Amino acid sequence: MNLPSLSDDAAAGKRAAMTSDPQRPEARAPRGFIDRRARDVVAERAILAAVSGVYERWGFEPLETGAFEYADALGKFLPDADRPNAGVFALQDDDEQWMALRYDLTAPLARFAAQHWETLPKPFRRYAFGPVWRNEKPGPGRFREFWQCDADTVGSARPEADAEIIAMAAEGLEAAGLPAGSALIKINNRKLLNGLMTAAGVVDEGQKLAVLRAVDKLDRLGPDGVRLLLGEGRKDESGDFTKGAGLSGAAAERVLAFTAAGAGDRAATLAKLADVIGGSAEGDEGLAELAAIDAALSGLGVGADRAAFEPSVVRGLEYYTGAVFEAELLLSTVDDKGHPVRFGSIGGGGRYDDLVARFTGERTPATGFSFGVSRLASALKAAGRDPGKAVRGPVVVIAFDQSRMADYFAVAKEIRAAGIAAEVYLGTSGMRPQMKYADRRLSPAAVIVGEDELAAGTVTIKDLDLGRALASKVADNAAWREERPGQQTIPRGELVAALRRILDAG
Amino acid sequence: MNLPSLSDDAAAGKRAAMTSDPQRPEARAPRGFIDRRARDVVAERAILAAVSGVYERWGFEPLETGAFEYADALGKFLPDADRPNAGVFALQDDDEQWMALRYDLTAPLARFAAQHWETLPKPFRRYAFGPVWRNEKPGPGRFREFWQCDADTVGSARPEADAEIIAMAAEGLEAAGLPAGSALIKINNRKLLNGLMTAAGVVDEGQKLAVLRAVDKLDRLGPDGVRLLLGEGRKDESGDFTKGAGLSGAAAERVLAFTAAGAGDRAATLAKLADVIGGSAEGDEGLAELAAIDAALSGLGVGADRAAFEPSVVRGLEYYTGAVFEAELLLSTVDDKGHPVRFGSIGGGGRYDDLVARFTGERTPATGFSFGVSRLASALKAAGRDPGKAVRGPVVVIAFDQSRMADYFAVAKEIRAAGIAAEVYLGTSGMRPQMKYADRRLSPAAVIVGEDELAAGTVTIKDLDLGRALASKVADNAAWREERPGQQTIPRGELVAALRRILDAG
Repeated sequence: MNLPSLSDDAAAGKRAAMTSDPQRPEARAPRGFIDRRARDVVAERAILAAVSGVYERWGFEPLETGAFEYADALGKFLPDADRPNAGVFALQDDDEQWMALRYDLTAPLARFAAQHWETLPKPFRRYAFGPVWRNEKPGPGRFREFWQCDADTVGSARPEADAEIIAMAAEGLEAAGLPAGSALIKINNRKLLNGLMTAAGVVDEGQKLAVLRAVDKLDRLGPDGVRLLLGEGRKDESGDFTKGAGLSGAAAERVLAFTAAGAGDRAATLAKLADVIGGSAEGDEGLAELAAIDAALSGLGVGADRAAFEPSVVRGLEYYTGAVFEAELLLSTVDDKGHPVRFGSIGGGGRYDDLVARFTGERTPATGFSFGVSRLASALKAAGRDPGKAVRGPVVVIAFDQSRMADYFAVAKEIRAAGIAAEVYLGTSGMRPQMKYADRRLSPAAVIVGEDELAAGTVTIKDLDLGRALASKVADNAAWREERPGQQTIPRGELVAALRRILDAG
Repeated sequence: MNLPSLSDDAAAGKRAAMTSDPQRPEARAPRGFIDRRARDVVAERAILAAVSGVYERWGFEPLETGAFEYADALGKFLPDADRPNAGVFALQDDDEQWMALRYDLTAPLARFAAQHWETLPKPFRRYAFGPVWRNEKPGPGRFREFWQCDADTVGSARPEADAEIIAMAAEGLEAAGLPAGSALIKINNRKLLNGLMTAAGVVDEGQKLAVLRAVDKLDRLGPDGVRLLLGEGRKDESGDFTKGAGLSGAAAERVLAFTAAGAGDRAATLAKLADVIGGSAEGDEGLAELAAIDAALSGLGVGADRAAFEPSVVRGLEYYTGAVFEAELLLSTVDDKGHPVRFGSIGGGGRYDDLVARFTGERTPATGFSFGVSRLASALKAAGRDPGKAVRGPVVVIAFDQSRMADYFAVAKEIRAAGIAAEVYLGTSGMRPQMKYADRRLSPAAVIVGEDELAAGTVTIKDLDLGRALASKVADNAAWREERPGQQTIPRGELVAALRRILDAG
C-alpha cells in the first residue's frame, strides 16, 4: 500500500484549495437554525417512537405532507404584493404561485382533508410529526425551525372525540417518559367563555377581549389583580397603569367565580360552573359537551389528576370553536439564576371546526392535540427522565499498525455481531490521541490488539467508564495513569462477555 | 347530553362558512410535492430504523442540521442578483442574506464539520436522514422533495474508511430488507480513470470528457457502440450522428480493455487493471487504494458478490476525488407496459476530499454513501419485501348507542392494553357505514357490543380479514352477507384471545 502518495496528494489538494478561492464562505448555520447532535437526536427520536406507538394503538394513522403549501392554503399568511407577510418563509414558484413552508401541522392537515375528503375513511384520524418553520426573530431558546407532533380527528363533532384526544395525549406524554402525575391536561370550552360573557352582560367585543386578557393573567396576578383588571384598572409595581375592562362589581365577581370553579373533581367543577353561567344557551351547550367529555374520560380511566376542567384556560380564541386543552408540567425547574420556576405548558389543542371549511365551504368538525418535540424533551430533562442521557459511543478498536487493519476490522465485526457498537480508529494518530478520541465519543471501552496480543491470542480491554469515574475522583491523574485501573488482558474468546460486563455496569 | 344542539350548531357554522368567503382557495399540494399515507410512511420508517441501527453499531452518530443553509455555504447554487440560480429553493432573509433549502445532506455536513472542526472527535463519523429539496421541473416519479439517508466519515484519508462505508452500506441495505445477493456495490476510483487517460494518451480536457461519456454508455450500447463513440463517432437507429472522442484504434482498445476488467473477483480485476494502466503515477495510486479497500472488505467478510470493482462506473466526476461507489439492484422489475427492466442504481457515494476545504482552505479527506429512501422502498417492493404491506388498521368497536359510549371506550381500552390497536367509531352513521369504515381502515376485526351482548356479558367479533378473503372469492356477495362467515359471539373474557387468533392468521 502506498500511503505516502496519499499524503503527497493531500498536500497538493491543500495548496490547490488555498489558492483557488481566496473568498471563502464562513461556515455557520443560518440565524435561528440549530444543529442537533446525537444526544438531542436520540432523545427526540425516543419521544416520537413512544408517542407514535401510543397514537397508532389508538387507531391514528401516520401522514406526512410536504414542507411547502401554497400560501393561500395556509390562510392568514397571504402574500401581499412582492413580498409575503412576515411569519412564514415564502417564495414565488416558477408559475408565479406563492408557496410557503408550513408553520404548523394543522394547516396541511386541513388542506389534505379537504383535498381527499370523498375518499378518506371518516372520521379521519391521523398523527404526524416533523419540522415546522416560523420566520420570526430568533432568540434564546426560540428557533425558526422546530419539530411538532400532532394527532387530530377530522369529521367527528362528538365530545367523545375530544375526550379521546385528551386521554391519548396523557398516555402519550407518559409513554414518552413523563412520570404519572407530573403533567395535567387542563380542559376548557370556548362556549363556556361565551356563556360567561352572556351571564356577565358583556356584549361589546372589545370589552370581551379585555375580560379574557384579564382572566389569562390569573396565574401571574392572582384573583385580586384580576379583579382590578376586570374593573377600572390596575397599577403595577413600576407605576404603569393598565386600563381595566370596566365591569360592574357584580359582573367582575361572576367572572372571578367562573375562573375559580376549577376544583380538581370534574363533576364538582361542572356543578359550580352551572351555578355561574347556567341558563345561557351557549354556556349550557358547553357544559353538556364537558359532561360528555367527563363521562368518556372516566370510561377510559383518566381521573382528574391527569385531566381536569379549568375554566381559566384562555388560548387560541380566534382558532378554537369548542373544547380547548392545555397540558401543563406540574414540576418546577430552575432558571439560569437557580430560582425555581414553573415549567408550564408542554402542549395543547382543542376543537377547530372551521379550518377545513376554508376550502370546502362545509363546516367540518375537527379536534386535535399538538406538542413541541424539543419542548417535551426539555420537560423530560426537568423530570429527570432524559432519554438522551443513555447515549453511548462505540467500542473503539485501537489501530497501531496499518498492515494489521484487516485484523482490527475482524475484531470490530465480531463485537458488532454481538449487537455492541464498535469501530476501528481510522485516523493516523498514535495511542494517546486514540484514547482521547474514544473518550470524546463517550466510548465504554477501548480494545487493544497489539503484536503481543495477536501472538498470544488475547485482547486488552480498557474500561473507559471506570477510567472516567476514577479520573473525576482521583486528584493525582498521573498516578492513576500509571496504575492503569480497569485494564485487563483476556483470551480473545472472552472479549464480548467482558465488554458486556462493562456496558452493564455503565 | 345535548347532541341535537351540536347539530344545530354545525348547521349554523356551515351556513356561516358558505357565505363568508366566496373566494375559497383550492385544496391542492404544491407542484412536485406529495402526501404520503400510512403504507409509505411505515415502509420508509422501517428502512430508516433498520439502517440507523446498523450505522450506529458501526460507530456513526446521528446529526440533524436545519433545512436551510446560507446560499454561499451550499456552493454551486449561488444567488445572482435578484433571484437565486435554479436548482434550489432560495429566499432572502431579513438581513439580506440569501438562504436556501438543502439539496442534499453532504453540503450541510461539510458546513457543520468546518464550523466545529476544532472540537469534533476526529475522524468525525455521522449519519443523517431527512428531506432534501430540488427546485426542478417535477415529473412522474420525480419530486421536488425527497428523503435521503447518508453516512460519512470526515477526517480519514485511509482507503479503509472507504471500505468501511462500502461494507456498512451493504449491511444497511440488507438490514432494510434487500435479500442477500440482490444488490451489488460497484467500486471504481477517480484516479484509475485519470491513469487511464494518461495510459491512452488523452490530455485534452474535452477529449477526456468525450471518453468518459462514451464509457458511461457501456451498459446501453455495449462494447461495439462504445468503440464507435471512442473513435470517429456513431450513428444511432434514428440516423442521428454522435461525434466520437477521436481516439486511435489502439487507444480505444485500451479504454475498452479497462472497462472490461471488472471480473467479479476483486484481485483478478486489479491484476487486469494493472496490465492496462499500470505505470501511470495516478493509476498506481488508485490501484494501491483499491488493494487496501479489497483487503479491508475481505477482513469484514464482504465478498465480490456484494462489493466488486467495476472500472466502467463513471459518476460525479466533478465531485469525487478518489473511490467512487454505486449500489445497484440486480433484480429485474417490470415497467408500466409489463416489460422487464433492470432496476438499476439504489444509492452511491465516494470520496470527496475537497468539500470542507471550501470553508477552511484545508483539504479534509471525506467519504460517504447516500441513498434515496423512497427509491430503496421501491427496490424493496421490487424484491417482494415491502415493509409497508403489513400495515393494518385498528380493531373498530362499533358504536350504536350514544349513551353507551363509555362502555365502548372501556372495550377499546382493554384491547389496546393487550397491545392491539383499537378505536371506537366516532362518526354518527349506522351499522353498514361503520363496517365500511372498518374495511377502509384495513381493520382485522370489528367488535360489536350491543344491548344483547352487554346483558349476556358477551361480545360479537367480525373477522374482517376472512370477510375480505371470502368476498374476493365468492361471487354471490348477498349470500355471503346472509351467512355472516367469520362472525362469532363469545364471552367478554375471551375477547383479546379471539382477536389475537384473527391477527395471527392475517
